[in-house]
Amino acid sequence: MTNGERKPLLALTLGDPAGIGPEIVAAACAAPEVHRWCRPVVVGHPEMVRRAIALRQTSATVRVIGEVEQADPSPAQVACLATGSDEVLDAPAGEIDGRSGQAAYEAIVAAAELALAGRIDGLVTAPLHKQALHEAGHHYPGHTELLAEMCGVDDFAMMLYLGPEEPIRGPAGLAVVHVTLHTAMRNVFEEMTSAEVLAKAHLAHAFMLRMKGEAPKIGVCALNPHGGEGGLFGREELDVIRPAIEAGLAEGLDLEGPLPADTVMIRARNGEFDAVVAMYHDQGHIALKLLGMHRAVNVTLGLPIVRTSVAHGTAFDLAWKGRAEVGSMIEAIRVAVRLCDGCQGSEFGVQGLIS
Amino acid sequence: MTNGERKPLLALTLGDPAGIGPEIVAAACAAPEVHRWCRPVVVGHPEMVRRAIALRQTSATVRVIGEVEQADPSPAQVACLATGSDEVLDAPAGEIDGRSGQAAYEAIVAAAELALAGRIDGLVTAPLHKQALHEAGHHYPGHTELLAEMCGVDDFAMMLYLGPEEPIRGPAGLAVVHVTLHTAMRNVFEEMTSAEVLAKAHLAHAFMLRMKGEAPKIGVCALNPHGGEGGLFGREELDVIRPAIEAGLAEGLDLEGPLPADTVMIRARNGEFDAVVAMYHDQGHIALKLLGMHRAVNVTLGLPIVRTSVAHGTAFDLAWKGRAEVGSMIEAIRVAVRLCDGCQGSEFGVQGLIS
Repeated sequence: MTNGERKPLLALTLGDPAGIGPEIVAAACAAPEVHRWCRPVVVGHPEMVRRAIALRQTSATVRVIGEVEQADPSPAQVACLATGSDEVLDAPAGEIDGRSGQAAYEAIVAAAELALAGRIDGLVTAPLHKQALHEAGHHYPGHTELLAEMCGVDDFAMMLYLGPEEPIRGPAGLAVVHVTLHTAMRNVFEEMTSAEVLAKAHLAHAFMLRMKGEAPKIGVCALNPHGGEGGLFGREELDVIRPAIEAGLAEGLDLEGPLPADTVMIRARNGEFDAVVAMYHDQGHIALKLLGMHRAVNVTLGLPIVRTSVAHGTAFDLAWKGRAEVGSMIEAIRVAVRLCDGCQGSEFGVQGLIS
Repeated sequence: MTNGERKPLLALTLGDPAGIGPEIVAAACAAPEVHRWCRPVVVGHPEMVRRAIALRQTSATVRVIGEVEQADPSPAQVACLATGSDEVLDAPAGEIDGRSGQAAYEAIVAAAELALAGRIDGLVTAPLHKQALHEAGHHYPGHTELLAEMCGVDDFAMMLYLGPEEPIRGPAGLAVVHVTLHTAMRNVFEEMTSAEVLAKAHLAHAFMLRMKGEAPKIGVCALNPHGGEGGLFGREELDVIRPAIEAGLAEGLDLEGPLPADTVMIRARNGEFDAVVAMYHDQGHIALKLLGMHRAVNVTLGLPIVRTSVAHGTAFDLAWKGRAEVGSMIEAIRVAVRLCDGCQGSEFGVQGLIS
């Protein structure tokens, strides 16, 4: 931050309290760099935050605040906006439970409402567990769709992002945007229209333009093996993806494809592309998780608010053992800060490149 | 090899001569370790072999042999079984051409016939170009399907294999077997029957049993994102994959799944699985190519003959420039030797583990 500039005020939601969310939030709040970048406010049950602090032995205290604007957090004092009922305190760790699902839901809704009201600059979410969410009566496939509904947007996308560290060789990291997401593979063919492919290319372009400071180069995946082999192994490349690419090129986007998915990911790792448009969930996730599961960040594109998340799940098998990796949460905070207004300070580089 | 034991006699086909096949075959024939492991016989046009030797400056001579049994190769002298017409000598490098496709085809057929007749121990193939093969009038999606037809087998699979080097942490490497292969994604749902999934698990088990010397642990991929989320995102996990896994478990195979494809690949890399059963081409290829494109080996399982191949393509953009990486070809030879009878010598470890 430049001196005197207001640091972004970011809500960190605890996610499903039965998972690793509380402890990675507590660990991130103890990291000095997080406080240099922003003012983090934890949203969730204060007692869960205290338990997580005890688990991670960060020796911070918790200050419950009535209004988010009162937050004055430091590594020694966590600012917490209390949400949810005390029922969650009896829900078991590491298990699917509607009480935990409800707590996760209430924290997200509270944080998103603050962001929509312009009272915070963005939100960074710890993972929730879909089945626990369902047991609490909230039928969303995930954060992405819930937030899109709250924001009233149809044109959104889930993006995975890895910053520019080995093995990613591009100067501004690598973003992978998904055309289809939480849907059966059988539905992919109907959902991946040319308009959707082009819309996702726009979202990828806008995000990486911001991260890179110049027009990004974008690789567009084929759907079928070997890119369809000229129609031998499917026609989506010819009938759907190529028209979308041609439309994007005509608008000035720097697109290449459709490219066989197994080679585009190698080229993207090597820095030939700043972003990749993937046709379905696993096409992007298999690659990004292999390239950096513990530091990948999930960004929801197309929302009127800034929202990032860790790219991993609740990890119930690892929950409340004090060993969960905090790297992805800190990366998610860093990317959220970068996306907020007023964060062009020295720590992020005058060119706006992420450090 | 133990002293006095007959080294396997392996045919190395040149692949499409317009690609990088000839030069990687010439480079492999100059590698002393290849001659410690086996007797390599190059199958293709001798003049192409001479050109490739000149390109790679290996200073070997070419001896054309009339019968494969006459082969007595060394790093200084390549044994070549001549196939194909002189027409290929005028075909352009780096371009799709029916003359090159025909040359590739004739070499494969000759080598496969020798293997089927028991006159060689196996074949190792350099890449062909599908479209050149088609222009020559041979309508196969690839080597795998052509060889399966020649061998008269229905129950075969394409496997990608990485030996036990970083980042692969399993003691015998990692094998990925594909349930469906060169087919449009729209056809995957019909082709991936329970019987096919189980058949591929058997092939993976048999291969890795040989490589590891004990029953391998096999991860089975889900088809849909998040493994289908209990039916929310598709039912193939419940209706097709799980029954196959249960049948395999009842037979004593060590199977786990269906597992979300993005996490199974992480666990496999970390050594939790010796093999993975992938439902479609890119599910396996995205992961294996990121984990080791230049040393991955393609093995056709289920044939009555030993056949391995490089995992990369013809790389027309790189062809005849003398810079193609030979690592995958040498690995393909090593795996072929390991699969031949009579190769339990010291270089491969008395337990039969690949070195």
